[in-house]
Amino acid sequence: MKTLSRELILDMSPFLKVEKHQVGLPDGKIVENWPWLITPDFANVVVITTEGNFLIFRQAKYSVQGSTLAPVGGYIEKGEEPLAAAKRELMEETGYEAPHWENLGQFAVDANRGNGVAYFFLARDAYPVTEPDADDLEEQEMLFLSRAELEAAVARGAFKVLPWQTVMALALLRL
Amino acid sequence: MKTLSRELILDMSPFLKVEKHQVGLPDGKIVENWPWLITPDFANVVVITTEGNFLIFRQAKYSVQGSTLAPVGGYIEKGEEPLAAAKRELMEETGYEAPHWENLGQFAVDANRGNGVAYFFLARDAYPVTEPDADDLEEQEMLFLSRAELEAAVARGAFKVLPWQTVMALALLRL
Repeated sequence: MKTLSRELILDMSPFLKVEKHQVGLPDGKIVENWPWLITPDFANVVVITTEGNFLIFRQAKYSVQGSTLAPVGGYIEKGEEPLAAAKRELMEETGYEAPHWENLGQFAVDANRGNGVAYFFLARDAYPVTEPDADDLEEQEMLFLSRAELEAAVARGAFKVLPWQTVMALALLRL
Repeated sequence: MKTLSRELILDMSPFLKVEKHQVGLPDGKIVENWPWLITPDFANVVVITTEGNFLIFRQAKYSVQGSTLAPVGGYIEKGEEPLAAAKRELMEETGYEAPHWENLGQFAVDANRGNGVAYFFLARDAYPVTEPDADDLEEQEMLFLSRAELEAAVARGAFKVLPWQTVMALALLRL
């Protein structure tokens, strides 16, 4: 599948741009008006403290009913490496640092429409160095879960947002 | 967070609509021009055959480089229950039926912008009843993986699309 042409049809920078693509298929057919979403790539981090607990948040988010559990994470800035973004978000959101980082993979959010790439990390032996500097619009509460508590939370779908459930599940499979 | 008003600003039905929302925050502030994506909800299924193998596909998709592994799944039609969509997609894409179904959860694709809801299922003891009736744009190859092969594929990120990696990880945690 090849992009034959592209046209910007909506610009709500920095959060969203929509393009219309003309796409060539392997059999030679051409698809017109293929919507393509350009949104910021983001990083999410599963954080394990030196005490062996999982550092997460409880938050309200616009897309979900009630509160949801959430990992550390946020948008990757222009020119920033995904791992650097993950470390920056850990510091800003929690005031923690971690000496040991593992890559849990990268995934296209949508198979057909783009919509950014998710980068996932596991941070081990995290410890507090300063106060969090949260600039999120929403209030959030910091929680420390044991492994058994995290397994139960994932099993009941308590991370109500797709990439958040994913990063937690991938960490549990790794550990 | 409350939706104070909404305006349709882009209509590429049936795949995408974009709205602009005015959102009221808990502290009384108002955010203008909040982008909101309306895309079809979808279902993905982890299929285990009567032989104990995982039935998956290898596909090319527009958002990923090279080929990717993929589960059974697709868009939920208007008025259709997610489980009914999952069963329909299993039949259309593989020609298989399954007597035992488990719910693996539902998740908002994006925490802030909507972009549909993913519904995940596990189908056990699946067996072939007819030929697949694939109407996908892309060619796809059917594969049967052992549990060890699936674990290795998930560990190396061979499902390159976010919901596909998620549904596989959640099934492995459940089994």
